[in-house]
Amino acid sequence: MWIIVRQSHAQDGFRIAVQHGRDMTATLSGIIPPMITPLRARDELDHAGLERLIEHLISGGVSGLFLLGTTGEGPALGARLRAELVERTCRQVNGRVPVLVCVTDTAFTESLNVARAAADAGADALVAAPPFYWPLGQPEMEHYFDALAGELPLPLVLYNMPALTKTPIPVATVRRAMDNPKIIGMKDSSGNLGYLHQILRARAGRTDWPVLVGDEETLPYAMQAGADGGVNGGANVFPRLYAKYFQAAVSKSGDLDMLHPLVIRMGDLYRNGSHASSGIKGIKCALSLLGICDDFMAEPFERFSAHERERVASLIEEQRSQVP
Amino acid sequence: MWIIVRQSHAQDGFRIAVQHGRDMTATLSGIIPPMITPLRARDELDHAGLERLIEHLISGGVSGLFLLGTTGEGPALGARLRAELVERTCRQVNGRVPVLVCVTDTAFTESLNVARAAADAGADALVAAPPFYWPLGQPEMEHYFDALAGELPLPLVLYNMPALTKTPIPVATVRRAMDNPKIIGMKDSSGNLGYLHQILRARAGRTDWPVLVGDEETLPYAMQAGADGGVNGGANVFPRLYAKYFQAAVSKSGDLDMLHPLVIRMGDLYRNGSHASSGIKGIKCALSLLGICDDFMAEPFERFSAHERERVASLIEEQRSQVP
Amino acid sequence: MWIIVRQSHAQDGFRIAVQHGRDMTATLSGIIPPMITPLRARDELDHAGLERLIEHLISGGVSGLFLLGTTGEGPALGARLRAELVERTCRQVNGRVPVLVCVTDTAFTESLNVARAAADAGADALVAAPPFYWPLGQPEMEHYFDALAGELPLPLVLYNMPALTKTPIPVATVRRAMDNPKIIGMKDSSGNLGYLHQILRARAGRTDWPVLVGDEETLPYAMQAGADGGVNGGANVFPRLYAKYFQAAVSKSGDLDMLHPLVIRMGDLYRNGSHASSGIKGIKCALSLLGICDDFMAEPFERFSAHERERVASLIEEQRSQVP
Amino acid sequence: MWIIVRQSHAQDGFRIAVQHGRDMTATLSGIIPPMITPLRARDELDHAGLERLIEHLISGGVSGLFLLGTTGEGPALGARLRAELVERTCRQVNGRVPVLVCVTDTAFTESLNVARAAADAGADALVAAPPFYWPLGQPEMEHYFDALAGELPLPLVLYNMPALTKTPIPVATVRRAMDNPKIIGMKDSSGNLGYLHQILRARAGRTDWPVLVGDEETLPYAMQAGADGGVNGGANVFPRLYAKYFQAAVSKSGDLDMLHPLVIRMGDLYRNGSHASSGIKGIKCALSLLGICDDFMAEPFERFSAHERERVASLIEEQRSQVP
Repeated sequence: MWIIVRQSHAQDGFRIAVQHGRDMTATLSGIIPPMITPLRARDELDHAGLERLIEHLISGGVSGLFLLGTTGEGPALGARLRAELVERTCRQVNGRVPVLVCVTDTAFTESLNVARAAADAGADALVAAPPFYWPLGQPEMEHYFDALAGELPLPLVLYNMPALTKTPIPVATVRRAMDNPKIIGMKDSSGNLGYLHQILRARAGRTDWPVLVGDEETLPYAMQAGADGGVNGGANVFPRLYAKYFQAAVSKSGDLDMLHPLVIRMGDLYRNGSHASSGIKGIKCALSLLGICDDFMAEPFERFSAHERERVASLIEEQRSQVP
Repeated sequence: MWIIVRQSHAQDGFRIAVQHGRDMTATLSGIIPPMITPLRARDELDHAGLERLIEHLISGGVSGLFLLGTTGEGPALGARLRAELVERTCRQVNGRVPVLVCVTDTAFTESLNVARAAADAGADALVAAPPFYWPLGQPEMEHYFDALAGELPLPLVLYNMPALTKTPIPVATVRRAMDNPKIIGMKDSSGNLGYLHQILRARAGRTDWPVLVGDEETLPYAMQAGADGGVNGGANVFPRLYAKYFQAAVSKSGDLDMLHPLVIRMGDLYRNGSHASSGIKGIKCALSLLGICDDFMAEPFERFSAHERERVASLIEEQRSQVP
Repeated sequence: MWIIVRQSHAQDGFRIAVQHGRDMTATLSGIIPPMITPLRARDELDHAGLERLIEHLISGGVSGLFLLGTTGEGPALGARLRAELVERTCRQVNGRVPVLVCVTDTAFTESLNVARAAADAGADALVAAPPFYWPLGQPEMEHYFDALAGELPLPLVLYNMPALTKTPIPVATVRRAMDNPKIIGMKDSSGNLGYLHQILRARAGRTDWPVLVGDEETLPYAMQAGADGGVNGGANVFPRLYAKYFQAAVSKSGDLDMLHPLVIRMGDLYRNGSHASSGIKGIKCALSLLGICDDFMAEPFERFSAHERERVASLIEEQRSQVP
Repeated sequence: MWIIVRQSHAQDGFRIAVQHGRDMTATLSGIIPPMITPLRARDELDHAGLERLIEHLISGGVSGLFLLGTTGEGPALGARLRAELVERTCRQVNGRVPVLVCVTDTAFTESLNVARAAADAGADALVAAPPFYWPLGQPEMEHYFDALAGELPLPLVLYNMPALTKTPIPVATVRRAMDNPKIIGMKDSSGNLGYLHQILRARAGRTDWPVLVGDEETLPYAMQAGADGGVNGGANVFPRLYAKYFQAAVSKSGDLDMLHPLVIRMGDLYRNGSHASSGIKGIKCALSLLGICDDFMAEPFERFSAHERERVASLIEEQRSQVP
């Protein structure tokens, strides 16, 4: 059985009410950064950096933390370190904001292991993309999410990340998941607004089934389209910018025009180098430049070299002079 | 430091001589099946089935066992079960044939965990494909294999599997790896003979650097091209067919003409259904039909249904009447 | 030498001023539908349908016509029919709106043939995507556009359509093209807002280098991002909806909130069936339902069957009740 | 109606017997080079080079000529030049070997135009890959080949080239085509031996339905698998090598062991540079080095520069010393 978690954050509307029966409701909204994992060395957390980062994010006004996702290098971290990260983060957050933990793994049992550690630590919800070694068919994916949701000790948020998992979550699979009381929402990192529009239409009228988006470049448009919030890497660096952007988007305030290009500009953090990992390296590099944490990367990646570091420094400098 | 392992199997030429210094030599050849992992339920080995399977393979004349690869559902199995499988297999094999253990994982430390379990159990070598969540650049891949080989307690065989890992191992990376004394050979599952030809040319004159191939459909051609052996899923079902095929290919005996189409025919086991997993399902289904082990699949997959089972039964029936 | 064409359409800002020297300026903006090509049979125009379609579009307030693009089935039409279409369209349009003609072809000389027919007919500009049989490298693409622009009798608009041409036009290639006086703008049909943002930043300050977008689903967002107009298939069916949408977007009027979902809804016309051609079939089907022209398709495609036709009819019916 | 063509070339078994009714039979076998198109400038044939090339090929013992395929830059050449090439080639060949003409085009009517020019010139058969701008579904492809074969004035050979046309020809579509009397065989350039095996099994017993292969690297294996011949770019350069290879493969003579690596080595001509066009450039460069014809390339490509030319020269030099 899974425990009841009930939280209310008036400021950003986050609420997960998990019950044993069918009447569970959940609302996620606002900016929930996909937190990078501060490392000092292989398999070793940067403890002080982690503390600083959590405070940086919470004081920046984020509506939650999302651990061990793509930006959090989740798939590159071992089970022990994943558990330690979740435990330390939940302890320090101490209920100030909800904590979501990504359990994506190619091995079902390892997903359950992370999930149990998350539940024990007091996390609020779990997130899972499809297993990503073999491409899946639609029936296989539906079977997988059913089985996973059934075993998890906390509610589940679907995670669509086709660029890395190979298989997008079909719209029909998402529609079906909306009827599973343990599946409480979705994060879409496809960057595909056509797909997002279909998802949003499929959940029309379900204010309790939040859809968050991951893509940095399309956040402003996704918000207009009706998405409930963002899980955007750049919010690790400038959480207040993203939080203010979210507030402005919700209230349709005039700040939008000023904030919009600043959010878009953060997308450049993802284009510093040709490799898929350059976004994560860029965020870690920026946080290191800001004195928040180390920029050590888990294998197979390495931190940026001096040349790339300079380009990140320029971007950060330029943005700092403008962000609120 | 890593221990010295020295074995000689005159029958198939397998020899790994690992030393502390540079003069290590290693020869792998013959048929080394990518053993499926017999399961009774989620996270639960089929112990009796595993014993029967190992005896089926060894008595069938295979030159080694390859555990936890793609066909072995390695990425879908948790750390505990991987260790148990390696431990039980090594104990039962008891040095009769070499045991290779695939440590491919998106997390470096989990690869090390499997590797240590393998070394403790007495396995002979390790195998690793590039981590497969993010696509890698060439420098990143070289850095990764250097770091991994440096940490592993046993020699390493490279594993090229671009269809599932996204990033092929560049020919230049393989050429460079040949100079690393801890990297003793390669398994190429690309099915791309042009790539294979380049690898074989790059290792020209290095009789101590074996190249094995995984693709069922191109094994006969790869053998002609100069490959040293096969890691072919179908050998789980009919090990003797593949072992005889290998002997005939080495000795260029007349049996080749009779055996060639039988080996090619096994490729149909991989086309029974449209999903990427149909090959593994087919092999497990065939072994279940032969009374060797259960055909339970780890998530996200399920065993074949009755309809597909019938088609596998037809193929097996047809082949049984012809294989030696 | 190429002739001077100078037109001014105050209503939508379209202006092409082509001169022999370097001081050419050009402005394209507004809705320029990628006109479908009305056919009665293979290699046979639906003349009456073409006339009705052109009047439907011009009276609907479009800012130009774009012939022989992807939606216009350009690559599926022979040289003779392409020339006939251009000639008839220009004659009937008679300068009321600018006519752009797509000359994309895998054969350079065939692009020139279409271009000459377009210049002879009085078209205003040409459009070209990279040749699409072989993938191109960046130097090859730059060489190609330089050579093509140099030979064309009219100014050239670049056409980015990576989903079908295989090779996206790199941002650096576009930036370089801005210095070529014969290349006067761009149509981006990638649907990738990250790419669009980079292009828009690269042309910052160049009000004479218009960027139009093709993707139906992202038009509203692209307009906000700074794009100058849309080349959207749905505008064949409801030109007034798109024209009004454009005006509202430019003037930031309150109509946007009402029009936005109607434009987004048109994206469903592209998802009626799984094949890449379903968008074109859908538009032709809708125009046939509206009594404007035949829905005959050039090989390799066939018109929608009754079942799909009904679904298009529903969409059209629903939209008709709401569009202005 | 289409004319009767009946030819018999005892030496290599080529025979096309086209009749008005159902009893047409056709046999293609041996080496049929995908002839490059010698150009002097854009849209201008190198007449003297073409003559020399044709004599070089015929005297080298090829079993036919294949014009305007991928290697022949077909899609990059305009209709006029295609017709001129076919006309000149047929005139000079004068029945000494069969001439096959590729009519692949995105426009059906342009395919018919090339086909008529080919029939008028006395060509023996036509070849067509699926149109390649839009990806096709299977029913669309079947409809297309049915319609095309129905209109063509000569028998049709299917051409599978998925790397460039996007859509592979499904095995079921090929099986269906075998029942169409106007479709007399297939050229498979997929390089995928698993696919080839399925095709060969599907045509089991049909000695009148030849399957030729295009991939340089897998020709020797394809011949063993049962293919009837090769359409290999390298045969432009060393026709005798390929012709002898074919004879040795048919007669299973001992020459195979000597010739096999030489044929494989030619695959390097395709890896000289990273662009998809490097194979064609390499062949033209080699022919230019041999004094046979110009190496001018149609847009969007350019001939090799000095550096790449040197590498081709080395390969040619090395091979010349060894080929028969």
